[in-house]
Amino acid sequence: MTKKVLITGGAGFIGSHLARRLLADGLEVTVMDNLFTGTKANIYALLDNPRFTFILHDVTQPFWGQFDEIYNLACPASPIHYQRNPVETIKTSFLGMMNVLELALKTKAKVFYTSTSEIYGDPEIHPQPESYWGNVNTIGMRSCYDEGKRAAETLCADYLREYHVDVRMIRIFNTYGPNMHPQDGRVISNFIMQALNNRDITLYGDGSQTRSFQFVDDLIRAMQAFMNLEQSTITAFYHSKQMNMPVLNIGNPDEYTIKELAEETLRQIPESTSQLVYMPLPKDDPKRRKPDITLAGELLNWSPRIPLREGLAKAIAYFSGNNKENFENSR
Amino acid sequence: MTKKVLITGGAGFIGSHLARRLLADGLEVTVMDNLFTGTKANIYALLDNPRFTFILHDVTQPFWGQFDEIYNLACPASPIHYQRNPVETIKTSFLGMMNVLELALKTKAKVFYTSTSEIYGDPEIHPQPESYWGNVNTIGMRSCYDEGKRAAETLCADYLREYHVDVRMIRIFNTYGPNMHPQDGRVISNFIMQALNNRDITLYGDGSQTRSFQFVDDLIRAMQAFMNLEQSTITAFYHSKQMNMPVLNIGNPDEYTIKELAEETLRQIPESTSQLVYMPLPKDDPKRRKPDITLAGELLNWSPRIPLREGLAKAIAYFSGNNKENFENSR
Repeated sequence: MTKKVLITGGAGFIGSHLARRLLADGLEVTVMDNLFTGTKANIYALLDNPRFTFILHDVTQPFWGQFDEIYNLACPASPIHYQRNPVETIKTSFLGMMNVLELALKTKAKVFYTSTSEIYGDPEIHPQPESYWGNVNTIGMRSCYDEGKRAAETLCADYLREYHVDVRMIRIFNTYGPNMHPQDGRVISNFIMQALNNRDITLYGDGSQTRSFQFVDDLIRAMQAFMNLEQSTITAFYHSKQMNMPVLNIGNPDEYTIKELAEETLRQIPESTSQLVYMPLPKDDPKRRKPDITLAGELLNWSPRIPLREGLAKAIAYFSGNNKENFENSR
Repeated sequence: MTKKVLITGGAGFIGSHLARRLLADGLEVTVMDNLFTGTKANIYALLDNPRFTFILHDVTQPFWGQFDEIYNLACPASPIHYQRNPVETIKTSFLGMMNVLELALKTKAKVFYTSTSEIYGDPEIHPQPESYWGNVNTIGMRSCYDEGKRAAETLCADYLREYHVDVRMIRIFNTYGPNMHPQDGRVISNFIMQALNNRDITLYGDGSQTRSFQFVDDLIRAMQAFMNLEQSTITAFYHSKQMNMPVLNIGNPDEYTIKELAEETLRQIPESTSQLVYMPLPKDDPKRRKPDITLAGELLNWSPRIPLREGLAKAIAYFSGNNKENFENSR
């Protein structure tokens, strides 16, 4: 029988890639999204596939459905979006996860939770292994996201511990690619949109701060590989590592300075007249984070394959195709 | 008009002291409790007061009522209780806080949230000031409590930030006194019950680890003082400290070794035939924590008054009065 999959947040950046991939593999895919940051445009090409269903629904409200696998990706993920309504953001993380886990408990579905490197907060060690507990403010501007995602991890751990729900979790590090929201305020989309529209490229500080960037296809490959493992395999692996919860860092540890990223973006858009300009570093600047992906390598035989230059070309092609149709203002 | 107060978790250890105190001050007090760890016995003496109402209700389910002030104390607080059903524990923290804040938003009630020193986890600095972010595992055995309480702080901060709900939060450090659950597994109740029943007093490790203990009356006094401040006073104070959220540590910074506590307990129960015995330190031993109470001193002109010797005498009187009636087994 064809495997039935639910993707919450499936009209978002990462969810839409996952949906396309799983459909291509022959699965039956249902996407649930409230279209707050996700868009119909991201899944437009999937709508006429008979194995595809779209549900307009908010995960904070309970829902029902018989699925073999549920990927929970529902939550605004960029500060510009998640700080617009902080109360809704933390509710989406917590209640969304709770509703997914309750449904999984009743229907014996597998659950995949996409947590985030943000649960490490402002880390005191580099790179961050899964065993690191993080350094997060409970009452700051970013807490609605960070603490919401942390508490959702705890829910997953407790539904596994108490009710044996078949849960797996990943912590996603900085990821980019087609279908990114052009106005999400992240550095890659900012730089590309600025370069395409001949606006100055803004660097904060001296641009020497480093970031690591993962192309979305590498992430999707890791997600599928992790979901396809048997629970017994996962349990044995973590047991051998003296860890009791199935959580993996997924990201690309290659580091680039922000200035290198800006220069590479301009190199790939030679017609741009944009100049680099330097601004003071904001108080709330996202902190440097770099994944330790040893565990993912061992468990999934996975490592990122797509270098920044190649991924950036694909992202630029996407933004530039959509830019023509006044994409930026329609979102 | 008489002030109307709701205390969620009001049949528990701390809630029952608060209820008694507020009734004595002439307020109208409603206690809401699901009686999971709270007991009718704790509020028995209040039941015939015409200004007192008891509601048997679980805070994870929405509720309605017109109150001037809401104290949210609902959550099992000792590992032995909160680990019995971890999923319910984190739901109680998060959904309970959400339901209280939603009610406060609609009815313009003041909200008082009793957070905990557990949000500091296994702290890397001593003593802990309010500005310390903590060191907490998202997926461990204690996470259902620690992360639930952390996320509830975030909810308070976000309802204040987004909807201007008049919220204040305290982080309660180790507290003891009458109405403590005799089987909550905490060191003071353990030692007293062991001594009263002539069982060996168990020390873990060599007993040289230190703890600080706050007598419950000191805590209640701080809670009332904080609740009675105007929001404008609080805002101005935190603004002057470059902090943007009203949170205070409340605890007693005096430190005693566990061995000193055991010896003092035996000194106060001279008829006991209990002996001190030493056991290996468990993996999950609660970590040393000591409050920095500078802020509470400045804002409330408050500091703890009751020394361990005096508080212990009151706790022993309580346990020994109840012990006679086979109290330990009836709970």
